Amino acid sequence: MRREGDVRRMTARPANAHQAHILRLLRDEGPNSRAQLGEFVDLSRSKLAVEVDRLMEIGLVANNGLAASRGGRRSHNIRLSPELRFLGVDIGATSADVAVTNGELEVLGHLSKPVDVRDGPVAVFEHVLDMAGKLTAAGIADRFDGAGVGIPGPVRFPEGIPVAPPLMPGWDNFPVREALSQDLGCPVMVDNDANLMALGEQHTGVAKNVKDFLCVKIGTGIGCGIVVCGEVYRGVTGSAGDIGHIQVDPDGHPCACGNTGCLEAHFSGAALARDALMESGHPGELAERLASSGTLTGADVAAAAAAGDPAAGDLIRQGGGHVGQVIAGLVSFFNPGLVVIGGGVTGLGHSLLAAIRTQVYRRSLPLATGSLPIVLSELGPQAGVIGAARLITERVFSPA
Amino acid sequence: MRREGDVRRMTARPANAHQAHILRLLRDEGPNSRAQLGEFVDLSRSKLAVEVDRLMEIGLVANNGLAASRGGRRSHNIRLSPELRFLGVDIGATSADVAVTNGELEVLGHLSKPVDVRDGPVAVFEHVLDMAGKLTAAGIADRFDGAGVGIPGPVRFPEGIPVAPPLMPGWDNFPVREALSQDLGCPVMVDNDANLMALGEQHTGVAKNVKDFLCVKIGTGIGCGIVVCGEVYRGVTGSAGDIGHIQVDPDGHPCACGNTGCLEAHFSGAALARDALMESGHPGELAERLASSGTLTGADVAAAAAAGDPAAGDLIRQGGGHVGQVIAGLVSFFNPGLVVIGGGVTGLGHSLLAAIRTQVYRRSLPLATGSLPIVLSELGPQAGVIGAARLITERVFSPA
Repeated sequence: MRREGDVRRMTARPANAHQAHILRLLRDEGPNSRAQLGEFVDLSRSKLAVEVDRLMEIGLVANNGLAASRGGRRSHNIRLSPELRFLGVDIGATSADVAVTNGELEVLGHLSKPVDVRDGPVAVFEHVLDMAGKLTAAGIADRFDGAGVGIPGPVRFPEGIPVAPPLMPGWDNFPVREALSQDLGCPVMVDNDANLMALGEQHTGVAKNVKDFLCVKIGTGIGCGIVVCGEVYRGVTGSAGDIGHIQVDPDGHPCACGNTGCLEAHFSGAALARDALMESGHPGELAERLASSGTLTGADVAAAAAAGDPAAGDLIRQGGGHVGQVIAGLVSFFNPGLVVIGGGVTGLGHSLLAAIRTQVYRRSLPLATGSLPIVLSELGPQAGVIGAARLITERVFSPA
Repeated sequence: MRREGDVRRMTARPANAHQAHILRLLRDEGPNSRAQLGEFVDLSRSKLAVEVDRLMEIGLVANNGLAASRGGRRSHNIRLSPELRFLGVDIGATSADVAVTNGELEVLGHLSKPVDVRDGPVAVFEHVLDMAGKLTAAGIADRFDGAGVGIPGPVRFPEGIPVAPPLMPGWDNFPVREALSQDLGCPVMVDNDANLMALGEQHTGVAKNVKDFLCVKIGTGIGCGIVVCGEVYRGVTGSAGDIGHIQVDPDGHPCACGNTGCLEAHFSGAALARDALMESGHPGELAERLASSGTLTGADVAAAAAAGDPAAGDLIRQGGGHVGQVIAGLVSFFNPGLVVIGGGVTGLGHSLLAAIRTQVYRRSLPLATGSLPIVLSELGPQAGVIGAARLITERVFSPA
């Protein structure tokens, strides 16, 4: 994307914690009056003015007209600079989503296309840069102030490097952050895709204002974003939330990881497609879909179940039971305030959710489930790209 | 314990965050020079002097002689008042431990006796107050500046009230904090026993300086203390770490909670005693122990295994495998920096530890286990009482 002679302004960073706090408030709450901002950050009018003026000078915030009167002199509204642009990238096992947001993380443009993560990082990022180029060509952005990237595997977070991701041959130790940062000419941060889904749900989804929650992402693989006291918890080496290889049946299916009975081997997009093939021997919706397309996917199972195919319904109930069994254990252990279910398999909808809820409410302690909502993500594929954009703003909106 | 006409001084509280910080530093690091304290809390010499003088006036800190020279004028050493006394109470299913500590949480006296938690809170606290009375009568303390209490069940933490604890009939909603606070005439805090074990290990045990770790306590029941960023994580309703009812076998033993296949039903002091009885039909160490005492406990299994009884060894390996299976899931989910195994069953020693390690290192992702120590508690029954004392200092050493 970067051309010879292309002169780019690197986005300035706030100088202190007060400025960082102001930027994050404006990101999460939108435009605000100076008076209200002063109350939020606990600064006097004059001290706030100093910090806001400095943020205006470096181009991170802008005036936004006069606020409604609160009795005295009318206060100016402040907002994040309308020119801020962040790139959110969410790489799945079989697709990539790329979106451009403003400073408030509203999605201004979003592209998605089938991409096979097994083609390796160079090929995948060619697609990503191509999509980012299309979004800039459409006039949505002329530069990026930062980019966040999610990948479906464990990430050594400080360095932005994937570590031995089981579904992703060729990605182990690839310097994603460094490579993309050079290509895009802006700061980049990389995280596990389930963590970014959690950040997205926290920013504008069902988890807004929830401090301790879990986000279970069920796609080709299964991962879990963990939020503790409003912050994503990544564990000591960045692999926290890797629940796809928790054992659900000691005598169960062999898993790609080398063990047997892992959750992913019993329920995930891939496992569902495999089980659907086994069921397609009997006449019914699954058999018809196989005959017409030559293959079966998780989406076929969802459609067949919706059409009343009993075998497809059973597959979803059994799989949901396995996921519910693992989530029940996590609820006992972590006692969250909310569990969000997302990812490609949420197309399976409410029969999946019902199977999960049955297990959790039956197996976990009443004290932990007494007021525990278990809900489907409402953001769908936008959760990941919004979360990715939020991830990089955490860095851009913090003191250099 | 309180007598008519007994005039007690309530312990003063620090006035601000700097004072609280100084008190916690002196608790964790012991006596320190004023010069070093100033560096730790980032205060100028004169501002530190103001805060320290105020803490001396209210009797929380004391002079402790001159510090070693660092070149200039010799600085005074400061320590917590040597008169501070905290009571640590750790109630198990079948025993109660009571200890008195100083401000640095060194154990000055420690009593333990068999107590059946099923006798209910009134009877149990009679024993506890009796033991506390014996410790004061021995001249170790003449009053308490605060008491921490651990119980083997879930606690609504802010109020210090047990909530539907499965092993503890009669305790549901009993106002432990309020009742003991009246009896002892000092502030009281109540927590789950596994959380207190974690606090104890953090203060002076194997977890000192570890920020994210798990403390798995295996006694009559099984619980887990979770420490995130140096703080105990209790979950939204205080039941976090309740891992005893995670399912290890869908077709397993019935559990007291009404489900089947719970970890506690397969491995705990109670399960081990039950399984040992079944094995005692064959000639061997277990059969001899049963014949001589008329009953079998977890301790008998440990002794029989140590004496080479193969059936006892098998029981420990099978049970350790079940615990390891659950811990493997928690390691995948939480990616801790350390796992500590404690509680009464640690008398089973290294064959238990070996069985747990085998499961975890085989089942969890290499990124999560690459540098993960799994160790036995070294504090034994002192972990709980030191943790209980630490819990109440968190309150006494915080601004009122």
